[in-house]
Amino acid sequence: MTQSACRIKAPAPGSNRGYVHVYTGDGKGKTTAALGLALRAAGSGLRVAITAFMKNGAGGEYTMLGQLDKQIRVEEYGSGCFVHGKPATGELNRARQGVRSVERLVESRQFDLVILDEANMAVACGLLKLETLLDLIRCKPTELELVITGRYAHPDVIAAADLVTEMREVKHYYRKGVLARPGIDM
Amino acid sequence: MTQSACRIKAPAPGSNRGYVHVYTGDGKGKTTAALGLALRAAGSGLRVAITAFMKNGAGGEYTMLGQLDKQIRVEEYGSGCFVHGKPATGELNRARQGVRSVERLVESRQFDLVILDEANMAVACGLLKLETLLDLIRCKPTELELVITGRYAHPDVIAAADLVTEMREVKHYYRKGVLARPGIDM
Repeated sequence: MTQSACRIKAPAPGSNRGYVHVYTGDGKGKTTAALGLALRAAGSGLRVAITAFMKNGAGGEYTMLGQLDKQIRVEEYGSGCFVHGKPATGELNRARQGVRSVERLVESRQFDLVILDEANMAVACGLLKLETLLDLIRCKPTELELVITGRYAHPDVIAAADLVTEMREVKHYYRKGVLARPGIDM
Repeated sequence: MTQSACRIKAPAPGSNRGYVHVYTGDGKGKTTAALGLALRAAGSGLRVAITAFMKNGAGGEYTMLGQLDKQIRVEEYGSGCFVHGKPATGELNRARQGVRSVERLVESRQFDLVILDEANMAVACGLLKLETLLDLIRCKPTELELVITGRYAHPDVIAAADLVTEMREVKHYYRKGVLARPGIDM
């Protein structure tokens, strides 16, 4: 991989080391695991931000997070997924805005945990360059905990992470024809 | 398996079918996936209850849930894990209280989603009988969504579920000597 200069101005390393988590795989539970982690972290006094790359006006989860004394900040930079074909210019611009948002959130030093929801999928769909995601990992402040979700995690992202869980689908009711339900699946 | 009579008085089936989820495996993200699902469901107007079998006074996540207009009810019936040896009588009694709590929560018809956190582990540790957990699955009201977390899910529990995700550990920082950290790992 070609390493570019870090656009994020990382603060000097402190005593606490933050790690990079990846939640990937074809099973259910990737985004919800990150959301549950956000809840746990905020409940322990950590400051949490979520940048969602594929979603906009997503499920009720963000409505609920909004009730939590503003301890969890949410920014959404997407409107859907491009599994086939080339992303539209507007979508690419939104993804770029998402990256700039992450850089600002990180540089502000206002957050201990930053979640890049569906960033793996954004790379797989061509919305986000792999190098950009790798730079966000490489240039993060030492103390920051970074969480990346989405299926199709690139091997280089897995290599760069400290903790990787593959959510493996053993059984899923959509194979029985059950459609995605608000509040449970989206 | 020997099927006992249902202690839960299930209401008549309605138009909405609820399913049984299992989040298991050795990777990080099982309980957090259930918590994130609780958040999403509550945000969509579903009524959620969590019964925790191994935990008591657990992480900050429950503190946060307490802020959510009482839309998510949490009951804790444990104080730790017994990987080795026979559980103490007090612990067995707590687990039995947990089962009765679940039965009451389900019978009340006040909840759309009930989460049995670490119930698989409770079975594996001998705190909960496999048959009891299978009965809770078998006797649930048709509409109820039931979520069961914890590693070592029994094959009969997996067979009875509609959706099963194995959280597979690809990499974990504890193998590098990183201790569990409040707000992130517990």
